[in-house]
Amino acid sequence: MNQIAQTSIQVAELANGQALSIPVFTVGDRNKGPKVYIQANMHGAEVQGNAVIYALLEKLKTVQLNGSITLVPYANPIGCNQKSGEFTLGRFDPITGENWNRLYHDHTHLVVDFAAKYVDASEQVIRSEFKQLLISKTDEILAQPLHQLKTGKRIAVNLQRLAHEADLVLDLHTGPISSKHLYCPEYAQASAKYFDIPHTLLIPNEFDGAMDEACFCPWWQLSEAFSALGREITTTNEAFTVELGSQEHIDLSEAQQDADSLLSYLTHKEVILDSTYQPKPIQRYACYLQDYVAFYAPIGGMVEYQAALGAHIKAGETLVNILRMDKYAQGEALNPITFDRDAIAILHFASASVNQGTELYKLFTNYFEL
Amino acid sequence: MNQIAQTSIQVAELANGQALSIPVFTVGDRNKGPKVYIQANMHGAEVQGNAVIYALLEKLKTVQLNGSITLVPYANPIGCNQKSGEFTLGRFDPITGENWNRLYHDHTHLVVDFAAKYVDASEQVIRSEFKQLLISKTDEILAQPLHQLKTGKRIAVNLQRLAHEADLVLDLHTGPISSKHLYCPEYAQASAKYFDIPHTLLIPNEFDGAMDEACFCPWWQLSEAFSALGREITTTNEAFTVELGSQEHIDLSEAQQDADSLLSYLTHKEVILDSTYQPKPIQRYACYLQDYVAFYAPIGGMVEYQAALGAHIKAGETLVNILRMDKYAQGEALNPITFDRDAIAILHFASASVNQGTELYKLFTNYFEL
Amino acid sequence: MNQIAQTSIQVAELANGQALSIPVFTVGDRNKGPKVYIQANMHGAEVQGNAVIYALLEKLKTVQLNGSITLVPYANPIGCNQKSGEFTLGRFDPITGENWNRLYHDHTHLVVDFAAKYVDASEQVIRSEFKQLLISKTDEILAQPLHQLKTGKRIAVNLQRLAHEADLVLDLHTGPISSKHLYCPEYAQASAKYFDIPHTLLIPNEFDGAMDEACFCPWWQLSEAFSALGREITTTNEAFTVELGSQEHIDLSEAQQDADSLLSYLTHKEVILDSTYQPKPIQRYACYLQDYVAFYAPIGGMVEYQAALGAHIKAGETLVNILRMDKYAQGEALNPITFDRDAIAILHFASASVNQGTELYKLFTNYFEL
Amino acid sequence: MNQIAQTSIQVAELANGQALSIPVFTVGDRNKGPKVYIQANMHGAEVQGNAVIYALLEKLKTVQLNGSITLVPYANPIGCNQKSGEFTLGRFDPITGENWNRLYHDHTHLVVDFAAKYVDASEQVIRSEFKQLLISKTDEILAQPLHQLKTGKRIAVNLQRLAHEADLVLDLHTGPISSKHLYCPEYAQASAKYFDIPHTLLIPNEFDGAMDEACFCPWWQLSEAFSALGREITTTNEAFTVELGSQEHIDLSEAQQDADSLLSYLTHKEVILDSTYQPKPIQRYACYLQDYVAFYAPIGGMVEYQAALGAHIKAGETLVNILRMDKYAQGEALNPITFDRDAIAILHFASASVNQGTELYKLFTNYFEL
Repeated sequence: MNQIAQTSIQVAELANGQALSIPVFTVGDRNKGPKVYIQANMHGAEVQGNAVIYALLEKLKTVQLNGSITLVPYANPIGCNQKSGEFTLGRFDPITGENWNRLYHDHTHLVVDFAAKYVDASEQVIRSEFKQLLISKTDEILAQPLHQLKTGKRIAVNLQRLAHEADLVLDLHTGPISSKHLYCPEYAQASAKYFDIPHTLLIPNEFDGAMDEACFCPWWQLSEAFSALGREITTTNEAFTVELGSQEHIDLSEAQQDADSLLSYLTHKEVILDSTYQPKPIQRYACYLQDYVAFYAPIGGMVEYQAALGAHIKAGETLVNILRMDKYAQGEALNPITFDRDAIAILHFASASVNQGTELYKLFTNYFEL
Repeated sequence: MNQIAQTSIQVAELANGQALSIPVFTVGDRNKGPKVYIQANMHGAEVQGNAVIYALLEKLKTVQLNGSITLVPYANPIGCNQKSGEFTLGRFDPITGENWNRLYHDHTHLVVDFAAKYVDASEQVIRSEFKQLLISKTDEILAQPLHQLKTGKRIAVNLQRLAHEADLVLDLHTGPISSKHLYCPEYAQASAKYFDIPHTLLIPNEFDGAMDEACFCPWWQLSEAFSALGREITTTNEAFTVELGSQEHIDLSEAQQDADSLLSYLTHKEVILDSTYQPKPIQRYACYLQDYVAFYAPIGGMVEYQAALGAHIKAGETLVNILRMDKYAQGEALNPITFDRDAIAILHFASASVNQGTELYKLFTNYFEL
Repeated sequence: MNQIAQTSIQVAELANGQALSIPVFTVGDRNKGPKVYIQANMHGAEVQGNAVIYALLEKLKTVQLNGSITLVPYANPIGCNQKSGEFTLGRFDPITGENWNRLYHDHTHLVVDFAAKYVDASEQVIRSEFKQLLISKTDEILAQPLHQLKTGKRIAVNLQRLAHEADLVLDLHTGPISSKHLYCPEYAQASAKYFDIPHTLLIPNEFDGAMDEACFCPWWQLSEAFSALGREITTTNEAFTVELGSQEHIDLSEAQQDADSLLSYLTHKEVILDSTYQPKPIQRYACYLQDYVAFYAPIGGMVEYQAALGAHIKAGETLVNILRMDKYAQGEALNPITFDRDAIAILHFASASVNQGTELYKLFTNYFEL
Repeated sequence: MNQIAQTSIQVAELANGQALSIPVFTVGDRNKGPKVYIQANMHGAEVQGNAVIYALLEKLKTVQLNGSITLVPYANPIGCNQKSGEFTLGRFDPITGENWNRLYHDHTHLVVDFAAKYVDASEQVIRSEFKQLLISKTDEILAQPLHQLKTGKRIAVNLQRLAHEADLVLDLHTGPISSKHLYCPEYAQASAKYFDIPHTLLIPNEFDGAMDEACFCPWWQLSEAFSALGREITTTNEAFTVELGSQEHIDLSEAQQDADSLLSYLTHKEVILDSTYQPKPIQRYACYLQDYVAFYAPIGGMVEYQAALGAHIKAGETLVNILRMDKYAQGEALNPITFDRDAIAILHFASASVNQGTELYKLFTNYFEL
């Protein structure tokens, strides 16, 4: 049976001096095979990943490991304890408004010099040296004087430090009210079929501050930098944002399914050997990030969400009904709102009260089977 | 076809000077039969009542009315527009913390003098004069210098002014995540069977600031004051808080059912004549307010709600599972939490992240069939 | 030099399992002389009391103590870490809206039976036994099953447990933007002159949930219960809410002054002997709680606060100017708002943007020299 | 006397259907002289600009105008009415976390084609045609289907539409607790001396979403695009963010000073002729944006701000004292925190309670006299 070790790292300190730490679990032999990093709950309200990590830990006790896995639940101890009314303030620092998942450090500027220096090195050396470079540059950020690091950056970079040690990174999130979907870098499209996730977003090589991008962009851009020097190397590092479903929700049996799905991917990557975790025969759809469309409330009002999560809606079908009692006597109280393109409804807003311009739905358009 | 008139009353003014009004709908002849007052959305996140009022208006066009009905959706234009993160800040004024539904005025101190004065009057005179007294005393509050009335009180008393004109009052609310239930004054228990609502809370003659209490307590205490003078009068005024289900949710077809349920009650009260709106043959359970128990989180953690809404749970059954990943290596990561009594699970908290001491469930205990 | 001991008590647990504790400092010999309890920061934004406790601890090292003092800064680790935007959400639980300082337990129902039982006992026995009763009844609340205690109640009752051991209780608060003022039970009016605080509110014997009331009401009502039995006893227990000035503000040199003021009171009470801490020769004004008037914004708008804190304003003088740019072309853009009585301006609202009905000022009326 | 016209534009709609508008004031002859656009209160808590606009309107009645001025107070009716506790949630959309002042549209991509097309045109034609292009491209955004425009973008672009008509743009803001300072594009440095503002930040030609950048970047980049084509044109359009002092504060007499300062600039620009509004003989300091340093709390705690606003602090001087009562017995309760460079303290955080990593101060370093 594989041993699971639990440690913790301190990442924050509150106004009353209370230190805040995150638990870190490790399993497997760090001296052989691929390294994996899995975290959950960077956004405060997105708690289901913690249950998935619980399920993973239980399952990992009995698999045949060819590598090591680091698992971090409760990744953001400030975000996950920040209430705003009854609900957890999900996505941003209540003080600054900054999205907690846009504060990772961009190391992509390192690639050009590195490629020039290692243009003739073996792929093994390249991988090992570039990983070491990412780690040491991240250490440098953490070694700065304390007054140079803001709250969210300190949390993010501490996590990024752990993630850069890994070859495969899974950042577990959820949408507001959401179907399962996967953010997948375009080059890793083939891997998307190993997750039991019906919707895949293919994202380009552009750093926008998120954990997955912080992990795959430097490697992807490194391969492009080598390519520009006339050398082709394979990008074997992969990183995904896994959107598990809806926020503010824990479902332990669903977590079993999600754990199986991640173990299927890790089996494919030979982190786990001889396992029974195999992808399920479901239909998988993908679209490019540029075709992932936000639909904003054209009017303010009370919203009945009509398009089911994961539903393939036809152009002209009703997405939502917006109720406007103020218009009952004059105007229209009940307003069916349609979308003019075929689409898959991936997620919708969490509240039924919306201002004009609130994001109601995110939709796959120009989608295709994976 | 009955005509529906729409007017509005201004109840608030924002920092940029924007006036806020609530729409007021009336139908029927105010010079005959019982008067009814129905409002919705006093708590910002509790929006389904607006959809029920929409459904009621549509249905009321074609019934045979023997009375008049005033309907007020969006009763609290500050509460229903106050976002706190993605969600609507439901129950309290963000500035003061005061529950919007605890700010109605208590007129019960009027009963003793009134009963002494009208001890020999006819019931018709008593009803008419006491109603007029409630209205004029409420008008006095609204006629105070503006600097004596705080935000929530101004909204509440404006609504109360409308409600005191009515004989029957229905205040449409929802729980956080909730089954349907009814707050019913003990003396009106017989009426509870005319609503299609499986759970009834029988509440005592104590004013705690809510709309239903503001409407029925003076009448109930008036009958007791007369009784103390040796005269028995019947309390024909009734007021209920109708909990329609969960907050932050609009369901138009469910609203049809809820409208039918209210019309069944109004048919019973002969506000509507010869109607087909009859109570459904469902089982109805009741408990006394003192037996309505809050169950607080014994530990902080991430919560899987196990007891289904409306479920009859047995003593010792699991209410929730609380996940505590920090205890994985030492202690218990997964904590099933049980309740030691038979109960009906009426509602639960809206978020899956809880501090120790957060209210997880509200439960009927010592319940009985109605 | 007096030794200061630091311990802590755990009062809460967050969603990620983080335990929250409050530090507890004690100084002096608990076996002789009066016992004192001082706490600060029950409301999250009211931080100056922590600085006062810091100053007190430093000064207490070198005084001649005839008694013992327990000091609790950061009394509410949830409240003091709860941000809402840049500011600390001051006064209420963000989840429930409950004022953190209205959750103490009411023990006044114990007095009648106790007085009957001890009607012939010595005052010393009465004091000792009643204190013990308050402590043991508070212990019973804390010994309840965990699921019966909500978050704020657990914090409050843990603090109340410490406070009931004391004879003198000082609860350090601040207003929003505020002059210094003191909440003083009417019977302890003579003590108010020993604080260097120019404004004293005399409060009646009514429990409304606050720490000071939780501490003095049972003793005051006990004396009344004895009085009803024909026996007069002296109420020697005292409890005050000390309003130190404005929230969201730390001023260490002002804290020195405030500490001196509290030590002056403790010298008067002979907790400290032969000290140089004497009341300053300032003018002190008082008013009864019923004459402490809230002035609400008669219109919404942007507010210039004109009445200085502590200013004695004459009837008809301008309290605030309310700017209403929407009325520039038609109506009045600049609205001076007056109060129609002589008053002392004690505190005003913290923000310059107000809705109609926001509390702008709290004012002493019918005030008199102490 | 100059006539002031008041109109309004609707920019938002709330959940209860309430439309929200902003007032728009215009004065002067739009057919001659420079056009000026002045707005205030885009950030909800930054209200002093409304008072400055009030003062400006009063003063503009009697000046000799050679041009026209559009003035928009309450620019963001959602932001300025969004309370979060007692305070106005200042800087970001409570639903999305987006800074309201980062949502303006970037038109800089238009410059290359435009320069190519107009390389031989007169400066007058260039100015007139490019202004028309900016206006028509902004109109196109507003003409999109409603479901493509999010709340904050709709507000921002409506304002930007007005601003593009102007040659000179002043966006009135405040800091949290702040001295007066000016954001000035580097090319307009000479204009900074006409404002009575002691601190000027010189900002580069990079669009980051703010109103001033949205207005000056296209013109600045246009001149660079012409320059690349070998033609030099003068950038006469200017745009500034004017930071008036602290948020949540209205001071009408200070507003008189600020209005005079803006009128001094407008006199310099010959929008006003023969006026007595001249710059005051104060010392003015400037630094480049890259030298504007944020100082984050190195530890969590309660903060006494020591460096006065506008103070020139020496390397090693104390910026703040951080109180940590939890460290009283072991460690340091009182922590003076120093900065290691000479600096001017421009603004500090609004609350005295900070988490580790909260921005405490913003500081000019490498500053110089203007």
